[in-house]
Amino acid sequence: MPHTADPLLLQLFAIFVWAKVFAEGFERVGLPAVLGEILAGVLLGPYAMHLIEPSPTVLSVAEIGAIFLLFTVGLETSPKELIRVGRTSLRVALAGIVVPFIFGFSYIRFMRGHSAHEATFVAAAMVATSVGITARVMGDLHVLGSRVAKIILGAAVIDDILGMIMLAVVAGLASAEGIEWLQLLVLAAEALGFAVFMIFFGPKLVRRIRPGVERMSTQNAPLILALAICLGLSVVAERIGMAAIIGAFFAGLAFAEYSPEWNLQPRVNAINEFLAPFFFFTMGSRLDMRVFRGDVVLASVIITVLAILAKVIGCGVPVLKEGWSSALKVGVGMTPRGEVALIVALIGLQMNMISQAVYAIVIFMTAATTLLAPPLLRYLFRRDLLKMQLQKEEEAVAE
Amino acid sequence: MPHTADPLLLQLFAIFVWAKVFAEGFERVGLPAVLGEILAGVLLGPYAMHLIEPSPTVLSVAEIGAIFLLFTVGLETSPKELIRVGRTSLRVALAGIVVPFIFGFSYIRFMRGHSAHEATFVAAAMVATSVGITARVMGDLHVLGSRVAKIILGAAVIDDILGMIMLAVVAGLASAEGIEWLQLLVLAAEALGFAVFMIFFGPKLVRRIRPGVERMSTQNAPLILALAICLGLSVVAERIGMAAIIGAFFAGLAFAEYSPEWNLQPRVNAINEFLAPFFFFTMGSRLDMRVFRGDVVLASVIITVLAILAKVIGCGVPVLKEGWSSALKVGVGMTPRGEVALIVALIGLQMNMISQAVYAIVIFMTAATTLLAPPLLRYLFRRDLLKMQLQKEEEAVAE
Repeated sequence: MPHTADPLLLQLFAIFVWAKVFAEGFERVGLPAVLGEILAGVLLGPYAMHLIEPSPTVLSVAEIGAIFLLFTVGLETSPKELIRVGRTSLRVALAGIVVPFIFGFSYIRFMRGHSAHEATFVAAAMVATSVGITARVMGDLHVLGSRVAKIILGAAVIDDILGMIMLAVVAGLASAEGIEWLQLLVLAAEALGFAVFMIFFGPKLVRRIRPGVERMSTQNAPLILALAICLGLSVVAERIGMAAIIGAFFAGLAFAEYSPEWNLQPRVNAINEFLAPFFFFTMGSRLDMRVFRGDVVLASVIITVLAILAKVIGCGVPVLKEGWSSALKVGVGMTPRGEVALIVALIGLQMNMISQAVYAIVIFMTAATTLLAPPLLRYLFRRDLLKMQLQKEEEAVAE
Repeated sequence: MPHTADPLLLQLFAIFVWAKVFAEGFERVGLPAVLGEILAGVLLGPYAMHLIEPSPTVLSVAEIGAIFLLFTVGLETSPKELIRVGRTSLRVALAGIVVPFIFGFSYIRFMRGHSAHEATFVAAAMVATSVGITARVMGDLHVLGSRVAKIILGAAVIDDILGMIMLAVVAGLASAEGIEWLQLLVLAAEALGFAVFMIFFGPKLVRRIRPGVERMSTQNAPLILALAICLGLSVVAERIGMAAIIGAFFAGLAFAEYSPEWNLQPRVNAINEFLAPFFFFTMGSRLDMRVFRGDVVLASVIITVLAILAKVIGCGVPVLKEGWSSALKVGVGMTPRGEVALIVALIGLQMNMISQAVYAIVIFMTAATTLLAPPLLRYLFRRDLLKMQLQKEEEAVAE
């Protein structure tokens, strides 16, 4: 007795399974899972094999997925650590934002003659470091305790916040009719104010309502409250002209301090595990691989080189006084771009602010920087590795 | 710079917050949270204050919520325990299914002259016990270790499975053009086969793939696999003419044994915490309170009385040899109806198989049995409580 299955469930199932099969394949050969999920979308999506064309409902689920993705990032970004981080990290983060933006904007606007809007989107996508991959490589190499690692992780926290502010500005631009500098300033001020408020007052507010939350009769009251505030700040962020995910990120920031105590992170992450594949898959499904012809390939390669150089210079120079080797490690460690770059590109595409070709360039750059950073980092840390091995051998001999 | 917020996010936020505010209010005065979430939907929904009319996307989110709700129920229903449960529980569960079905069907079909379809839906909704409330009351009274409690909890596990089979049959009916007894038999056989397969072979299959799952490179591989199978079996269930949630329930059953080891339950529950309020709210929003006029109120009260009597008789008689008091406790303990009743009614309404009035009757019955069971149970257990207090006093004196 065959019945027609609910198309929504069937699509959710197919997307989830394909995304995860590709993710597993990528992980097995040592590549980032996220790229596998995106590739699943590219290959099975409407521009290639046309097996799965995400329905409007699935796109909404993907949108909720993006919100939880950034909420999780926020939860993992401790404001306390941020305040504790040294000036070096701050300088690394700031220069690591400014240089890529200038490189990206200049190339797209002046060398390729695109509009200021498109240039701004590409430049903004080049800004935010996704430090997860670097952190994992450094963890594998057992160098997370080194000064270089601390500078990178500290800078990455600040970089997240600055990237969010940049995204807020860009998303605000997308809904305006041209770049108005006054509006840009207002948006930047709003975003900065939002960030500062959530960093300094968010945790205090949470601390203040904590006794009330713990007295609540609802089961899992802290999780419920965190989810409500995540949704609420997403709405607020959109109301004041930013992207919803920025509100979600800042909501995460406010709860980061209490996340271990309330066991929020693993539970929000479970929601994320369910929803994120839909986000990455639909992101891939919007990419028309056919735009990768001569000129676009060239531009993609140039933007990727610029994206790497800009971070190496911007993040390396502030630590140059600690030696060339440290400067290079920090620079390369800050190279990978991730979710924020992808979201900037997606917002641009959805708002018709960037072309398919420019969307493809940003996705190429994100994938390339993510793929290149691990081998480069392993190469740069090779001496530390050898030293560690030598030390172990000597200890073994001494015993 | 006010922008229009995404209506989806705004609705998700509003529904989540209102549902949880009502849930908290209900919990505070000792009422089940679920009823609060439904009431929020009734009051704010299109039939009353018309503040929130769930969009099609929110209805889809609610549908996914129902799937995770039943997946969680399945995860908590250990097949091992089920096989271990004594014959008494089996008899209690079986008679506790048959008697309410006969009572409900007869009253609606013969006394009120509704169609056989409507009678079947109401009867099916009267079948499944929701033992959560009883378990909590018995826990509060510290009598969970008693033989009565063990019989109730054992019967509830079997009752869940039988309820699911009943729901499968009813949902299958809803898509057919009248009651065909052959079709009904095929559906019942399918559902029973599905249940037996998932109880006996599901855990074995999971055990067999376990080494592979634990070798997988994907992070949280067991959770990912469980989610994929939950979505997959939901699609399968629909394909063979059952409700999607039945597949989700059986998927949970297959993973129940490994749920503690893989820490599935708290993480699936987090997804549930996020999605379930949308399900209960939209359920309430479909209820037109204005149908509660003379005749419908009378029918609601009669159905409620029948629902209670049927469980007290059906579940009490099989344990009568253990004394009147035990029989009454078991009968009343099996009285509360919950999610399954609500889902049966919702499917009936969505498929235009039952009228608004009948929908209202089922919701009334569910709420009333849930509200009446706790005080009745406390009354029935009053002697055990007094005995316990006496024992404590005597021990205190002896010291």
